[in-house]
Amino acid sequence: MPDDAGAALARLIRDVPDYPKPGIVFKDITPLLGNAGAFARATDLMARPFGDAGITHVVAIESRGFILGGPVATQLGAGFVPVRKPGKLPSRTQREEYELEYGTDALEIHADACDSDARVLIVDDVLATGGTAAATSKLVESLGATVVGFSFLITLSFLPGISRLATRRVARVIEY
Amino acid sequence: MPDDAGAALARLIRDVPDYPKPGIVFKDITPLLGNAGAFARATDLMARPFGDAGITHVVAIESRGFILGGPVATQLGAGFVPVRKPGKLPSRTQREEYELEYGTDALEIHADACDSDARVLIVDDVLATGGTAAATSKLVESLGATVVGFSFLITLSFLPGISRLATRRVARVIEY
Repeated sequence: MPDDAGAALARLIRDVPDYPKPGIVFKDITPLLGNAGAFARATDLMARPFGDAGITHVVAIESRGFILGGPVATQLGAGFVPVRKPGKLPSRTQREEYELEYGTDALEIHADACDSDARVLIVDDVLATGGTAAATSKLVESLGATVVGFSFLITLSFLPGISRLATRRVARVIEY
Repeated sequence: MPDDAGAALARLIRDVPDYPKPGIVFKDITPLLGNAGAFARATDLMARPFGDAGITHVVAIESRGFILGGPVATQLGAGFVPVRKPGKLPSRTQREEYELEYGTDALEIHADACDSDARVLIVDDVLATGGTAAATSKLVESLGATVVGFSFLITLSFLPGISRLATRRVARVIEY
């Protein structure tokens, strides 16, 4: 990743203290999304490392991942597959639970979203603990498809997320 | 809109009976999204009518609108602005309530999402009663910006939505 491009984009990320709860500083990407040049540049940087990887489907995680996954998919000439919270997808689904700090949550994918020929890039806005990314990877593999890699706008390197994504290629635009 | 393009895309929409509740036939767009050519074609048809309209921002409605709004924004060289359910946006917001069959719901936009020079295209997956589209239009106008038009993947013409969008331009790809 070009460091100076990432640094320029990082200046459009807004820190929101005490959101969603006291003590957490939320990285608000909306000023970046709202800047036409930055939005195009960011999604280009997320897609470009996988330009020759034969990606057939971009699997994006609800709901900020949807915003970035769409342009990444059209740039790569891939289809778009949503991964959502339980109950939000209308047809038959596969479900994967993952651990939170307290308790568990779950994600779902349509059981017919892609087949065993699919080569998948998983897209989300932020890689933190890696729980949702790892669960999404398991969902894709449960369909028999291949997870080629991951692309995140922001990576929080002080959290262990990256170590949970095994040996797959990971594209990162902005790192903290 | 070219009718035959719309018809080809409509064949990729899946009817899901009794979702989200008994008696409703849900139009599931995920088979269309997952088809690379159809996804690119659909978002192109949503953007193209506004190619010369000087759109500066695409405002998309949570959360299926996010999937379509991203590629429409990059194609038009516009920024992306999310409109979300209450409490989901981290910074200061404007809020607009709208009526449901029973009761009310609300949508929010960041108060600094765009300024009075902005020329906005509002994007969502489905136009039904027009309640969320009309509320989003009011939110954009509350920031002093101009709503140039709307773009929907699906329009349910048997519902009164279109009549609520005043005299603005409305792009529609698939109609029922």
